[in-house]
Amino acid sequence: MLNQVDDALAAMLPAGVLREVTPAYLEEPRGRYLGRAGLVAAPRSTDEVAAVVRACAAARVGIVPRGGGTGLVAGQVMPDGPAPLILSLERMTALRGIWPEENVLVAEAGMTLQAVRDAAETAGRLFPLSLASQGTAAIGGCLATNAGGVTALRYGTARALCLGIEAVLPDGSVVHDLKRLRKDNTGYDLRDLLIGAEGSLGIITAASLKLVVPPPNIGTAMLQVPGPEAALTLLSLAEGRMAGGVTAFELIGGQGLAFLAEVLPEIRQPLPGAEWSVLVEVGLPEGLPPEAALEGLLVDAMERGLVTDGVIAQSGAQAAGFWHLREHIPEANRRIGAVASHDISLPLSEIAGFIRDAGERLAGEGLRINCFGHLGDGNLHYNLFPAPGRSRAEYDDRRKALSELVHGMVVARGGSFSAEHGVGRLKVGDLERWGDPARLKAMRAIKAALDPLGIMNPGAVLSAAG
Amino acid sequence: MLNQVDDALAAMLPAGVLREVTPAYLEEPRGRYLGRAGLVAAPRSTDEVAAVVRACAAARVGIVPRGGGTGLVAGQVMPDGPAPLILSLERMTALRGIWPEENVLVAEAGMTLQAVRDAAETAGRLFPLSLASQGTAAIGGCLATNAGGVTALRYGTARALCLGIEAVLPDGSVVHDLKRLRKDNTGYDLRDLLIGAEGSLGIITAASLKLVVPPPNIGTAMLQVPGPEAALTLLSLAEGRMAGGVTAFELIGGQGLAFLAEVLPEIRQPLPGAEWSVLVEVGLPEGLPPEAALEGLLVDAMERGLVTDGVIAQSGAQAAGFWHLREHIPEANRRIGAVASHDISLPLSEIAGFIRDAGERLAGEGLRINCFGHLGDGNLHYNLFPAPGRSRAEYDDRRKALSELVHGMVVARGGSFSAEHGVGRLKVGDLERWGDPARLKAMRAIKAALDPLGIMNPGAVLSAAG
Repeated sequence: MLNQVDDALAAMLPAGVLREVTPAYLEEPRGRYLGRAGLVAAPRSTDEVAAVVRACAAARVGIVPRGGGTGLVAGQVMPDGPAPLILSLERMTALRGIWPEENVLVAEAGMTLQAVRDAAETAGRLFPLSLASQGTAAIGGCLATNAGGVTALRYGTARALCLGIEAVLPDGSVVHDLKRLRKDNTGYDLRDLLIGAEGSLGIITAASLKLVVPPPNIGTAMLQVPGPEAALTLLSLAEGRMAGGVTAFELIGGQGLAFLAEVLPEIRQPLPGAEWSVLVEVGLPEGLPPEAALEGLLVDAMERGLVTDGVIAQSGAQAAGFWHLREHIPEANRRIGAVASHDISLPLSEIAGFIRDAGERLAGEGLRINCFGHLGDGNLHYNLFPAPGRSRAEYDDRRKALSELVHGMVVARGGSFSAEHGVGRLKVGDLERWGDPARLKAMRAIKAALDPLGIMNPGAVLSAAG
Repeated sequence: MLNQVDDALAAMLPAGVLREVTPAYLEEPRGRYLGRAGLVAAPRSTDEVAAVVRACAAARVGIVPRGGGTGLVAGQVMPDGPAPLILSLERMTALRGIWPEENVLVAEAGMTLQAVRDAAETAGRLFPLSLASQGTAAIGGCLATNAGGVTALRYGTARALCLGIEAVLPDGSVVHDLKRLRKDNTGYDLRDLLIGAEGSLGIITAASLKLVVPPPNIGTAMLQVPGPEAALTLLSLAEGRMAGGVTAFELIGGQGLAFLAEVLPEIRQPLPGAEWSVLVEVGLPEGLPPEAALEGLLVDAMERGLVTDGVIAQSGAQAAGFWHLREHIPEANRRIGAVASHDISLPLSEIAGFIRDAGERLAGEGLRINCFGHLGDGNLHYNLFPAPGRSRAEYDDRRKALSELVHGMVVARGGSFSAEHGVGRLKVGDLERWGDPARLKAMRAIKAALDPLGIMNPGAVLSAAG
């Protein structure tokens, strides 16, 4: 049982770590949950993080770690239960080192993803993880939630980009495992266990990250496709022709273009009215002009009936315009106001069937469906919007049932109800409902073994004990 | 405490799973350890694996899982303690399914790596994991040991090629997590925890594996380099020019060529006498002839002084000849007879310094050093051989000290004493000595939580309790 003993706890903390409890520490981006906090601590070093954790363990006070606070599943806010200590990584923003010749960088957890990307770029390298929220999202949070984004198709999610971590465990011990090694088979993969555990097994304080040499030639195209099935065949064709050089393959549904035209009409649409289109980016070797490579793909794909129209960017500015369009789909969604949003993934060969069946099943519900996302990863954002002229509030009583319907159809096809956003507190019930029982039991055993007092992000991923 | 109660245990097992205890179940490839076994069971299904595990739990008998038996660190043989049950996956060899359009294949754990590769090839795909022992090594063992091999530079180790697993935990429960998903953030990464745990946390019974579309153009070259440092700069140059298309980058030391010339003189050497050379393979997009791409690299590298001579394969047969040479270095080593072998990895920028310092430190020891391996991964096989005319036995009393010296120098530079072979029983002491204490403590807590009876591969990775 966790207690609320703020004064006693405060006295046990390292000098100078406490911060004022301001609303910014209690918010999440969608404004759906308001967190609570007894104290906010912002340690300046790993040793101070460890000292804070030990103090909280002694006082039996829960700890909610906080990076940039951009998570979408309420992993960073604790609305219920005894008020926790918020452990903010905001002061741990050092670049500990960069080894361009190794393609490695070591960052403290509080560095923003943008800062990590900038540091890599300054050294002539690329840190490929890329998210809309990268200006605010902290790298520690990206790892804790195993963030995905648009380049996972080629470079993997955050987990695949991490070589080693430094972390404070719930007993206050510090794991020093900031290895700069590509191969290291010396025991259990504690790194990948903490990555994606959303702060419920420990606090990542620093990470050794994989960089790449940026591809010399980058090409971008928007291609109109007959449907999701053709898009997937096109992806296979492209991956074969490009030898794995497809960096991004984003599906854009016609509803998304219609929303953009409605609320952001200033954004130029290269394929207006396309029911389905894809945004393709390729990164290619020296000696292969990307326009020519994409032209070859386009001709081949049109002959096979996989593409009906297309525009290959002839300049960096034109490519940036395509990405500008893609990146503003979430903003248009926000302005329209979703009834329910779903961050799902499916086996690639189930995608077309799911889109068809879910569309049919939801047809009588008075909804508009905006289906878009990282098709190459099987990761769709399947979002439901009110029919024209109706308000979000009119659907309040059906929201939960609609999400259960969507998640049920996804799980039945071997898919996931949380592809990249994680479980947080929002989807704990989904995990209990849809998760494999033996896996859940093992997760609970691991949680109890590493965090017997239940102080690390209580109620995130797994429901709080007691 | 584990007991030896073979008759009682045998009566509890599913009908027909027992096999005769033959020497083949007790051997490991180097013949250094002889395992023991009370019983050998070869279940035909995951349910039978679970029944065997439950019976062993009830009887408190240790289980040693066995795939192809090719491991090099005695993870598959238990020479000491109460005789265990050997659980062989030899009858679980089904290809459960293949989805070429998804680039996914689901294999049972007993399929050989070669059979997995063949199944992928038949479907026009590539399963990129590649090891010398692939004709015998089982995919379950490859995952349990997180096998590496020559293509890890581009495609990662076994862990990076696995999307999901089915596994039997030490309590006999079955984790059904054979997802065919690229993104799935729904709780702790039990998959990556079991991968690399060498059977000490559970038994992987099947896996969902990532395939790739084979690159349309493959090029191969052998390049002579001034030294390891130049080789690494060459790697960066190649990775940049090829946009990540470097599939393999193998370092070959002059001693290895000399051994080949001595014991396998029929193998053709394209760069005879080269003190240092690299074998480079690239997989490139449509429209880029690989000979031209490698020619461009060669010219660029020679201008920079990174390459002094080189041969670009002009045919598949010539490329195969280069690989034939590389793959026979271990065979030549075996014929010469190593004093001590080391499967180490280092941060890339530490490699040249390590090779220099270790060479100087060992100069007076009367040894020949054959240093070769997967340079792109920082993974070297650093093997010590008797001086000409001397026998392996003359070094028996110094073997342990020499390995400690090498491992100490590796760890001091942030490297690993086991890059790809794992810990098994051979390196438990190394892990205890060199491993991070907090990480080891967490590993022991996880082992105790998932395997409280200590029946899963007792004494592998972590010393057996009690």
